[in-house]
Amino acid sequence: MNITIIGLGLIGGSMALLLRGLPGVQRIIGVDHENAHGKQALNGGLVDEMMDLEDAISVCDVIILAIPVDAIKNILPTILNIVDTQVIMDVGSTKAVICKTVQDHRNRGLFVASHPMWGTEFSGPSAATKLAFAGKAAVICDQVNSSHAAIGIVEKIYKFLGMHIVYMSSEEHDLHAAYVSHVSHITSFALANTVLEKEREDNNIFELASGGFESTVRLAKSHAEMWVPIFVQNRLNVLDVLNEHVEQLNKFKSCLVNEDFEELARLIAHANTIKRILK
Amino acid sequence: MNITIIGLGLIGGSMALLLRGLPGVQRIIGVDHENAHGKQALNGGLVDEMMDLEDAISVCDVIILAIPVDAIKNILPTILNIVDTQVIMDVGSTKAVICKTVQDHRNRGLFVASHPMWGTEFSGPSAATKLAFAGKAAVICDQVNSSHAAIGIVEKIYKFLGMHIVYMSSEEHDLHAAYVSHVSHITSFALANTVLEKEREDNNIFELASGGFESTVRLAKSHAEMWVPIFVQNRLNVLDVLNEHVEQLNKFKSCLVNEDFEELARLIAHANTIKRILK
Repeated sequence: MNITIIGLGLIGGSMALLLRGLPGVQRIIGVDHENAHGKQALNGGLVDEMMDLEDAISVCDVIILAIPVDAIKNILPTILNIVDTQVIMDVGSTKAVICKTVQDHRNRGLFVASHPMWGTEFSGPSAATKLAFAGKAAVICDQVNSSHAAIGIVEKIYKFLGMHIVYMSSEEHDLHAAYVSHVSHITSFALANTVLEKEREDNNIFELASGGFESTVRLAKSHAEMWVPIFVQNRLNVLDVLNEHVEQLNKFKSCLVNEDFEELARLIAHANTIKRILK
Repeated sequence: MNITIIGLGLIGGSMALLLRGLPGVQRIIGVDHENAHGKQALNGGLVDEMMDLEDAISVCDVIILAIPVDAIKNILPTILNIVDTQVIMDVGSTKAVICKTVQDHRNRGLFVASHPMWGTEFSGPSAATKLAFAGKAAVICDQVNSSHAAIGIVEKIYKFLGMHIVYMSSEEHDLHAAYVSHVSHITSFALANTVLEKEREDNNIFELASGGFESTVRLAKSHAEMWVPIFVQNRLNVLDVLNEHVEQLNKFKSCLVNEDFEELARLIAHANTIKRILK
């Protein structure tokens, strides 16, 4: 089995590193519109060779789309036009718009919409790591629209990566992702900008920054070229959650304004129950 | 030199573990109003013995106050009343109210107001670790109000812990801490509550939570008994920063409402410059 990975960033690069060990895999082929990424991926031993999109598709059995979600939306119909029996999976952070784009395509059954719930704030082939994915959830969406054979191959890949598989509709996925991933990024971006604004008046503002600050703004290092398309495609869900988050922040603000410290303690105690979820 | 540590939680306990190695230290004495903490601290080898407050003060040379900031404010005048030559340092997360409380005390010179910028979301003696403090900043506030001898001892302690020392007024400290620590906690608490509210309708909301979510809400595990007194004492600074943060969040919201994705990309690119600060 030959695997073509389109996009050799954090996710595609890490999959390249790991899937080399999947029983039955002969060649890992890379496609990346950035030549520098291709060279890094070859030098780093992530892929056996780099090819043009059409050549890479013609010689492979499985195609993994690991590019920003706007690029997935644009390229997926073209790929479905030219595949024959190849299975295509994407790993994008949004699912509904992508699934809608190809819902009536004659080759829809060859495509599996998925999202491995792993990532870091780093990007590019140099961020690729064998420590990726294991222990996290991989979501497969709208599985009734994919062929049994295609689902079987994608399940095999995620299980080999050490992930457990969760099935849901693409709409459910996008709502859940807004809550547990997309809004975290906005709060990090906004917190970074809050402190950076202050720094304009006060050069030494970061002198005291410690681990707590770092973990809260870590995601603010994430790139616009990946995240703007996510916010475009999941705009309404993200807006809903953002409105709720601002409401929750306003509850804290009211406690401070009104010096209602009993209610403040209650809000914090409620937040503490998140322990149940986190390790 | 004998050191008395009042409060054997994360900070006091970690100091107990590490200061045993400070040249010249003979005994580490613990004081804690929670008997269970005292037993844990003795069993864990954090302290040589547990004593009542007055006994512990009478036999020591240095007193470290590692209790919530409301308790520091309450107990510090009493301790200053009974000390003779003992140096007292606190490690609280706010400084202005505490300094103001004792500004006219005849023994003010024996007190050094300080804040080591290290912490985790865990608490109690079992959270104490020798991995604490190193490489981070320790703030000493209003140092002109402390005697040279007292400042010298506190500097020696922080340097031994591997910290670099930053000097500023207690007012400056509280403003900076609001930006790089206190507000991070509120955003984490509020984000946890946002998602926990959603969970009431949708049991599976956390199934997809991954590393990004965990790092953003990690601080939401922090306890109200430590944090409410911080918000009480630093209320106005925290409110200012919180207002700015909500304004920054509203900029992201406007971009989504108006589908202004160029401006959204600009906001994210600005947030990315936080890289300069983070490792």
